[in-house]
Amino acid sequence: MPKLKEECGVFGIYGHPEAANLTYLGLHALQHRGQESAGIVSSNGTHLFTHREMGLVNDIYTEEVLSKLPGRNAIGHVRYSTTGSSHLKNSQPIVVTYARTELAIAHNGNLTNALTLKEELEQSGAIFQSSTDTEVIVHLIARSKEQSVIKRIIEALMRCKGAYSLLFLSPEFMIATRDPYGFRPLALGKLEDAVVVASETCAFDLIEAEFIREIEPGEILVVSPRGVESFKPFTEVGHKYCVFEFIYFARPDSFMFGRNVYQVRKELGKQLAREQPADADIVVAVPDSGVPAAIGYSEESGLPLELGLLRNHYVGRTFIEPQQSIRNFGVKLKLNAIREVLSGKRVVIVDDSIVRGTTSRKIVKMIRAAGAMEVHMRISSPPMCFSCYYGVDTPIREELIASSLDAEEINKYITSDTLGYLSLEGVMKAVESYKGLDGNEGFCDACFTGNYPVEITDSKVQLKQLQLFDR
Amino acid sequence: MPKLKEECGVFGIYGHPEAANLTYLGLHALQHRGQESAGIVSSNGTHLFTHREMGLVNDIYTEEVLSKLPGRNAIGHVRYSTTGSSHLKNSQPIVVTYARTELAIAHNGNLTNALTLKEELEQSGAIFQSSTDTEVIVHLIARSKEQSVIKRIIEALMRCKGAYSLLFLSPEFMIATRDPYGFRPLALGKLEDAVVVASETCAFDLIEAEFIREIEPGEILVVSPRGVESFKPFTEVGHKYCVFEFIYFARPDSFMFGRNVYQVRKELGKQLAREQPADADIVVAVPDSGVPAAIGYSEESGLPLELGLLRNHYVGRTFIEPQQSIRNFGVKLKLNAIREVLSGKRVVIVDDSIVRGTTSRKIVKMIRAAGAMEVHMRISSPPMCFSCYYGVDTPIREELIASSLDAEEINKYITSDTLGYLSLEGVMKAVESYKGLDGNEGFCDACFTGNYPVEITDSKVQLKQLQLFDR
Amino acid sequence: MPKLKEECGVFGIYGHPEAANLTYLGLHALQHRGQESAGIVSSNGTHLFTHREMGLVNDIYTEEVLSKLPGRNAIGHVRYSTTGSSHLKNSQPIVVTYARTELAIAHNGNLTNALTLKEELEQSGAIFQSSTDTEVIVHLIARSKEQSVIKRIIEALMRCKGAYSLLFLSPEFMIATRDPYGFRPLALGKLEDAVVVASETCAFDLIEAEFIREIEPGEILVVSPRGVESFKPFTEVGHKYCVFEFIYFARPDSFMFGRNVYQVRKELGKQLAREQPADADIVVAVPDSGVPAAIGYSEESGLPLELGLLRNHYVGRTFIEPQQSIRNFGVKLKLNAIREVLSGKRVVIVDDSIVRGTTSRKIVKMIRAAGAMEVHMRISSPPMCFSCYYGVDTPIREELIASSLDAEEINKYITSDTLGYLSLEGVMKAVESYKGLDGNEGFCDACFTGNYPVEITDSKVQLKQLQLFDR
Amino acid sequence: MPKLKEECGVFGIYGHPEAANLTYLGLHALQHRGQESAGIVSSNGTHLFTHREMGLVNDIYTEEVLSKLPGRNAIGHVRYSTTGSSHLKNSQPIVVTYARTELAIAHNGNLTNALTLKEELEQSGAIFQSSTDTEVIVHLIARSKEQSVIKRIIEALMRCKGAYSLLFLSPEFMIATRDPYGFRPLALGKLEDAVVVASETCAFDLIEAEFIREIEPGEILVVSPRGVESFKPFTEVGHKYCVFEFIYFARPDSFMFGRNVYQVRKELGKQLAREQPADADIVVAVPDSGVPAAIGYSEESGLPLELGLLRNHYVGRTFIEPQQSIRNFGVKLKLNAIREVLSGKRVVIVDDSIVRGTTSRKIVKMIRAAGAMEVHMRISSPPMCFSCYYGVDTPIREELIASSLDAEEINKYITSDTLGYLSLEGVMKAVESYKGLDGNEGFCDACFTGNYPVEITDSKVQLKQLQLFDR
Repeated sequence: MPKLKEECGVFGIYGHPEAANLTYLGLHALQHRGQESAGIVSSNGTHLFTHREMGLVNDIYTEEVLSKLPGRNAIGHVRYSTTGSSHLKNSQPIVVTYARTELAIAHNGNLTNALTLKEELEQSGAIFQSSTDTEVIVHLIARSKEQSVIKRIIEALMRCKGAYSLLFLSPEFMIATRDPYGFRPLALGKLEDAVVVASETCAFDLIEAEFIREIEPGEILVVSPRGVESFKPFTEVGHKYCVFEFIYFARPDSFMFGRNVYQVRKELGKQLAREQPADADIVVAVPDSGVPAAIGYSEESGLPLELGLLRNHYVGRTFIEPQQSIRNFGVKLKLNAIREVLSGKRVVIVDDSIVRGTTSRKIVKMIRAAGAMEVHMRISSPPMCFSCYYGVDTPIREELIASSLDAEEINKYITSDTLGYLSLEGVMKAVESYKGLDGNEGFCDACFTGNYPVEITDSKVQLKQLQLFDR
Repeated sequence: MPKLKEECGVFGIYGHPEAANLTYLGLHALQHRGQESAGIVSSNGTHLFTHREMGLVNDIYTEEVLSKLPGRNAIGHVRYSTTGSSHLKNSQPIVVTYARTELAIAHNGNLTNALTLKEELEQSGAIFQSSTDTEVIVHLIARSKEQSVIKRIIEALMRCKGAYSLLFLSPEFMIATRDPYGFRPLALGKLEDAVVVASETCAFDLIEAEFIREIEPGEILVVSPRGVESFKPFTEVGHKYCVFEFIYFARPDSFMFGRNVYQVRKELGKQLAREQPADADIVVAVPDSGVPAAIGYSEESGLPLELGLLRNHYVGRTFIEPQQSIRNFGVKLKLNAIREVLSGKRVVIVDDSIVRGTTSRKIVKMIRAAGAMEVHMRISSPPMCFSCYYGVDTPIREELIASSLDAEEINKYITSDTLGYLSLEGVMKAVESYKGLDGNEGFCDACFTGNYPVEITDSKVQLKQLQLFDR
Repeated sequence: MPKLKEECGVFGIYGHPEAANLTYLGLHALQHRGQESAGIVSSNGTHLFTHREMGLVNDIYTEEVLSKLPGRNAIGHVRYSTTGSSHLKNSQPIVVTYARTELAIAHNGNLTNALTLKEELEQSGAIFQSSTDTEVIVHLIARSKEQSVIKRIIEALMRCKGAYSLLFLSPEFMIATRDPYGFRPLALGKLEDAVVVASETCAFDLIEAEFIREIEPGEILVVSPRGVESFKPFTEVGHKYCVFEFIYFARPDSFMFGRNVYQVRKELGKQLAREQPADADIVVAVPDSGVPAAIGYSEESGLPLELGLLRNHYVGRTFIEPQQSIRNFGVKLKLNAIREVLSGKRVVIVDDSIVRGTTSRKIVKMIRAAGAMEVHMRISSPPMCFSCYYGVDTPIREELIASSLDAEEINKYITSDTLGYLSLEGVMKAVESYKGLDGNEGFCDACFTGNYPVEITDSKVQLKQLQLFDR
Repeated sequence: MPKLKEECGVFGIYGHPEAANLTYLGLHALQHRGQESAGIVSSNGTHLFTHREMGLVNDIYTEEVLSKLPGRNAIGHVRYSTTGSSHLKNSQPIVVTYARTELAIAHNGNLTNALTLKEELEQSGAIFQSSTDTEVIVHLIARSKEQSVIKRIIEALMRCKGAYSLLFLSPEFMIATRDPYGFRPLALGKLEDAVVVASETCAFDLIEAEFIREIEPGEILVVSPRGVESFKPFTEVGHKYCVFEFIYFARPDSFMFGRNVYQVRKELGKQLAREQPADADIVVAVPDSGVPAAIGYSEESGLPLELGLLRNHYVGRTFIEPQQSIRNFGVKLKLNAIREVLSGKRVVIVDDSIVRGTTSRKIVKMIRAAGAMEVHMRISSPPMCFSCYYGVDTPIREELIASSLDAEEINKYITSDTLGYLSLEGVMKAVESYKGLDGNEGFCDACFTGNYPVEITDSKVQLKQLQLFDR
């Protein structure tokens, strides 16, 4: 139940009479990847049509709005919410006209040399409209001396470092591409004769598209009236899939990096039970993200699974706290402990990760207040010690509790009786349990180990503290 | 996962400096009882202040809105959503001025002689503003010849038949009352020196109020500057608690009719496993309402519980269906089946009830499409054969699938391999497992048996088809 | 340029396929009679359909809104704005259902025994929803023992005292009626086969309806499928047309009480020039209401008319005043003086009335600041010394400057060099100059003389200070 | 009463604690120059703060909005409304960040080589966000190699041709500049220690600022903490003030190009009476713009001025026309003829210009329908034969009735008895009557003569038909 926010989710479809309509459904299925804003750009073969707005997909896209997004091709984007830079101007897809060419771009990930490139571009007169790193790509494309748009895009991407799963839409074509390391997912599917791409396969399920394969790291897939063409202009490097997609971000029903997310997550719970057993009476999940691991933990340990924490799904963005102090107010709005279940019990609480530790502390206190005799916190991932620069909105390192406290100190802070993390080896075992890694395949574990596969060109502090280029 | 809608939830607080603020939080905790509209009326001891709006509690009550609801006393109401009569004028609390007295009223339940009373009142010149049965009570109070408001209220209630858990607020007092049968719940609590009442105890948990006892059937509790007084002017009758609150409506973390809802629901699942075992590999719940029974079924049967159906909680009110036919569109927006979990398995699906059968049919098909070898539907309640006239918005009898088909025919219709309902005796056993029924205690099971404890004076067809008095 | 507000304007049409659409246009032409809220009720012969909203007619009635107001009959209402009671619930037409009959009512005027009747009705159990006097009529109708609606209406009106021009709409008929004194105007017209009624004839001009005659004082005109029937159930009394409609309220292009408003107003200016000449260089109007009288004054006096004050028509309801003091801020937003016109000149300023004197004072100062050598204020009506209780929203007597100061003292207060009012005889001469008064015809001049034709049953102070029944 | 729309109005203030508040009032006074959108950018010395919105100034700038525009310096802009390109993205002031510098720009006028410059900029990679010519200036500034912003601005303006009165705001300074010909007005004033600039002096009157002088054609005025500095980097050319500001656009109470607008306009009417007398009974103005000339015509001719046409000021943007045909619907919403004034009369109608002729035709017909015996149309400007490319939104030449018909043919088309235009010599006489032209002073009369002072580099047809760069 971390406060981490995924950057975004993307969806695209080429060659279907209901392109905008299906994009809206695809984005609905990807809503968990970003609830701040949503955007759709459609193409009728001649022009692009855009509608972006702050809010949830289902609130934004009415029949009237969708009717103004004509054409057989469309891409869409959902974006996460943070305080600083949640302005409409930062929402995506970005649409620009340069030299009479219309181009839309939707981005999941994060460039690590965006500030450096931006400064260089501004020196030579570029005017930026948003504070997103994505706009840098657009300016690089506009300034390329290449004639064909595809060559311009390749030239621009050659200069970009970091994580990106990108969709481009022009009146003529759609392009889907993924950075050489493949940090963020991007799946390819088909619906009748239409080509479909999405951050996660759950979007395919809803519209009944068929999953074909993942867009490969370093691949540029061009879909145009000439058909589908694949380019691999980048030097090959070892893949670095984001392991946190498995631990927390992705929807359990998605199939990603060759595995089903729910099953990986349940396996993490089983492995956790093996590594971190507990002498307890019941297993309780922190809903919703802790549920799969809790099922695994219960199954492996033989301890019964109980619904000891209930989630209220009506929680909106802001809530007015009464002046009279309610203990653990923020958590209480979302979770309630069931006294009759917990009272007098030794309880294992299963969650997927601990970020700042404040929420875990509140949950432990809430469970104890409901009468639990012992509280054993079990986390289905290793201590998170490092910030992510590849598209996950982790806080700066200083705010990560595991960057300064060891497990025993964290146990004291969150006031649990015992605290057990899953080891990195345990994570990898769980991931591999469903499919062995092939030679080139690997995971990015920088948030646990600090081993950053791609150099962070921009100053880290700048990047994290300044919310990118936003004032 | 029924399409049934609870009528409403009510909340009241008397004698707290943050009355409106806490009412808003209380309504948030009761949001599951009605998502159509919400209203709060506060009292500063001299006047009443009202804010009602269509929508969710958290969207309606901003800091600015709450600042216009001053005073130490307040009552609130959430209302369900149906197509016909979802107008603001039907939202509650209703506030009226009669003979210079201001009075607000919030109602959970349904009168069974409202149309009859309304016609009589209109004959003598009464002008109705809404199409709710609640307004009838207001007119009866206004026309009473009694001097004191409390006597007027008693006189009015004497003429009302059916189900009601009511809150009244005047500038001087708050009144909480429950009909003699006690169909709908109403709990009493305290928060420091303030008196608190709510449809369910989960509202107390959020604001950290202490649960004291339930308002008794037939009790009229008057809270005023003179303190708390209890009146019981009605002839005592055997209690008839709504058993469907346990099966579906109430929140699992609420304590109601002397029991914890989650534990009753889990026990229903255990009983179901005993009565309706299945030769299967895994147990899967229809989330969220089927989860507790599925946990019980898994525990009792020894079959492992798996997350085979995933719920998308971002679903809003309306959704634009694409023209290209998506199989089982409506269900797909809410639920997705996880292929990797279900493929090749013999699956027990646990749900709490079947209303029209259409949703169950779609779920069965969705599970089969995900590769399940066998689908065994298990329902933790008996066949629902009769409409409710006591505050649950069931469809007319003709639309209830169990009113015309027997279990085997329903099994065929929903295309499951086997279908098993829990028996009424099984329900009662589960209910009693946590607390024996005392002499006067009993449950209303009219939706299963057709034994209506209170006569339906108004024509049933009128009541159901005309959405009460709405045109 | 008074701060007086007319109560309202009404419009009705019976028997036209575009009833709601034409009502919206009619209300647009009557917008000057009330800018607070507007409402239209249409009838399709079976049911009534309503849309009321705060704001201007043109902002409220979009194509979508109008499409939800079907049928061949409709009535509409515009209402004025005051601070206290400008709530949507007070907007009109009021629509009620009593004993299965739907009835809408739109009212221009003011009852003088409304509070007395309301108290009596509340004693016997009536519940009021609004704070308007109009709702009293509705309750009287609902409680009548008569069978036919028309007899009920007559019985109800027999109990009402004061000023009313009323429109009723039921699914079957439209009724237009005017109190026996005829305080407020109400004109009858036709558009092809449809019957049209409106507060002023300018509404007929816009929709190209033909003016037939005025609804007579004391007349009840019933328009139904049986045709048009006229009833005169009241004892005849001498007519008392509101003279202030001529002086200020009505639109100059309307034909009212047998005269054209502009021509009466210009004649008032001529008469003013005869009674109150001035030794000056130029005549300047306070726009817009002072323009016709200024034209008359200029023509009669031979002094040239100049545009010395310019009006900004973009002024909305509220304006944020800067903290730095701007002299005469409120007036400056609406009016600007043209220095090049006024500088060094002896100026006659023509306005229609002085209410509190504060605006006149600001105008005089503004004209002097623009360089005028002398300022001679000329008012085309007598000193306003008394409040109106017949539908004009004058302030309480104490706030009327002429209730405590004589003309010379007012001259000092507003800092003009000379001040001249038109005499009551002069007003009557101007009114008669276009048409002699017949035997039964006369004007209500209570605001100048205190001769109230109809007794004020309700306490005057209550009426004025309590904004009717509003808290 | 032309359908011409002025491009815009600008306002700026430097060094006042209520900068945004006063800018909002200044824009209110300039509202007649653009009703489509309004924007304010304020500066607190470190950052710029922006609020732009579609709509009227008074609707947009609430207290809450203004509170988010801190600082002692601000500029504002109102923009006109046309169908094609009325998007928020085209509203002004434009705010950009280039190379870490924030800059806002507000523009009244029109560049004549914008398309040419834009194409060139796009070729080298510039990305445009809006379809306004103003953005071209921004890109030129961003790409300048100069170090100081002022030098960058001068370099950019050196490349721009056409009409511009511009305001720039950076965190440090405000710049006001006017193109060398001075097509559009720009006035300089002061309010205590603050420097104020505005398109028209009527904005100074409202906030009680003192008019000092006009910003001179070709002048660049820099206001910064160092004080006020004036630069004149351009080669001097003969001035070309827009004569149509006098004839129609400017507010009558403004002082512009050394004259008071109302007095010039009245003199145009006098001159018109001399050149184009009429044998008639009364003079009637087309309100509001025709009023000053009608006053002059009446005074010079001795014919009495009458209010024969009344204007409804509540007309909003769109109006739903009923299906039943109302003759001259569009004009009727705004104007109504007073039958009692016009009937049987020989009428002189005074208007300021004829653009397409359709409105004049409707007015003539309306006056005849009200009973006029003869209708003599008199226009206080010469036939408009050519489009404007310097900031007035005239239609393309083909739509100007005088581009293809001579005066006698137009007379026939609009169905007047006689039609008389004022000669260009007459216009100049009126303009000079209040102040002789000095050597360098002159007026742009291109709309009458086709003598365009500045070359139109971009294709004229493109410019007019494509609504600049908008798709």
